[in-house]
Amino acid sequence: MTTTVTAAILVIGDEILSGRTKDKNIGYIAEYLTAIGIDTKEVRVVPDEEDEIVPALNTLRAKYNYVFTTGGIGPTHDDITADCIAKAFGVSIDVDPRARALLLERIAEKDLNEARLRMARIPAGAELVDNPISKAPGFMIGNVITMAGVPSIMQAMLDAVTPKLKTGTKMIQVTIEAAGMKEGDIGTEYGAIAKAHPGVIMGSYPMMNETGFFTRLVLRAKDPALLGPAEAAVVAMVERAKPATSEIKITRGA
Amino acid sequence: MTTTVTAAILVIGDEILSGRTKDKNIGYIAEYLTAIGIDTKEVRVVPDEEDEIVPALNTLRAKYNYVFTTGGIGPTHDDITADCIAKAFGVSIDVDPRARALLLERIAEKDLNEARLRMARIPAGAELVDNPISKAPGFMIGNVITMAGVPSIMQAMLDAVTPKLKTGTKMIQVTIEAAGMKEGDIGTEYGAIAKAHPGVIMGSYPMMNETGFFTRLVLRAKDPALLGPAEAAVVAMVERAKPATSEIKITRGA
Repeated sequence: MTTTVTAAILVIGDEILSGRTKDKNIGYIAEYLTAIGIDTKEVRVVPDEEDEIVPALNTLRAKYNYVFTTGGIGPTHDDITADCIAKAFGVSIDVDPRARALLLERIAEKDLNEARLRMARIPAGAELVDNPISKAPGFMIGNVITMAGVPSIMQAMLDAVTPKLKTGTKMIQVTIEAAGMKEGDIGTEYGAIAKAHPGVIMGSYPMMNETGFFTRLVLRAKDPALLGPAEAAVVAMVERAKPATSEIKITRGA
Repeated sequence: MTTTVTAAILVIGDEILSGRTKDKNIGYIAEYLTAIGIDTKEVRVVPDEEDEIVPALNTLRAKYNYVFTTGGIGPTHDDITADCIAKAFGVSIDVDPRARALLLERIAEKDLNEARLRMARIPAGAELVDNPISKAPGFMIGNVITMAGVPSIMQAMLDAVTPKLKTGTKMIQVTIEAAGMKEGDIGTEYGAIAKAHPGVIMGSYPMMNETGFFTRLVLRAKDPALLGPAEAAVVAMVERAKPATSEIKITRGA
């Protein structure tokens, strides 16, 4: 039997929407969650505005098993993520003694001003998520995990929270490609194979390298007993459709 | 007087959500739209599923001036974007003679099979968006612009559709940073300056380079008469807060 655990990623930050900062977290988190058996089903990027963050968070946390947020937990006025999460959950928020103690491991008490103490504001009832790099913690409340936006810190927080997460059956994946095989030549038959194999997610991606376009077929399933027959049917199709001179390349795993 | 034109980006594709493909379109489109005077206010990534695509599209097109979609307009069964857009708008969809003619510029008529003809399926009433690279067009219907997922083709389509778009006043931006200045030292005062200058979007970003963390302050506004006084106040603050040995670096423009 296979089990499914789902997640959404909520990226919070004007700088991503303006294009000034190029997000590096979505792809990292998505790949990481796939590897541990959590299926990312949706991503949203919203601005640093409470009226956008709170409804997005409430929609996503009701729909998926987990929501991972990035960004907006620093010391400045535009860092409003923690307050928005408290509001979404209807809980209070204040400086958390545990988080304050963590800040003091890196910051002298005399420098722990109002701005820096913002980083210790944690919604009531949340568990802290360790930040080995700069100490200011992330947190987990209900099914929402709140992490920093700086990629190195976010990655460390994701490692720290992973042992607390419920995971499902991992997707297994096989990638099939042949140089010179065109998506348009196999599209109809590939669609029929997909229809005949429910439970297998079958994607087709036009790719380009120095020799031109080619087609990458990706088959994904949680149950190997479903994946095997679909793979056999696709390989047989590719044998017929590929140019006689090219070889089929099959890759297993992510 | 300043005017605002808003947009959302809707990325369609399982391969982004699994993390197998790292999206390169969100940052490109966001930066491009900022440069022409359109403000991206939200991004969503959804899977290749009609029940997810249609509601997301209807929410976003009602809320923003434009929606730009990427992905899902190829020749295979998982390319369902055009059909979903027709469904969202409540219009019919069929092989479009104009799109079919474009495909024939690159594909011999004998090879124009059912799969390839999927790329000529265009919602009724849509205008085509030129694809100089591989001919299969994007399209624009109402306020929704549908583009390919392959970055080079998406970029060409964005260029092609730009003359048809209404644009607003461009954001002007000034970036202020000083080596060694810490976000936590200026957070409270910076927040007060932000509060005193409504109409100016003031962000603060912890950055890291080989010499350690530093702080980048970004001020954005559509009206230079608002931006100037805010900039002056921030520069005066940075003069006081930065280490005596470091210089203030001010950058104008994106």
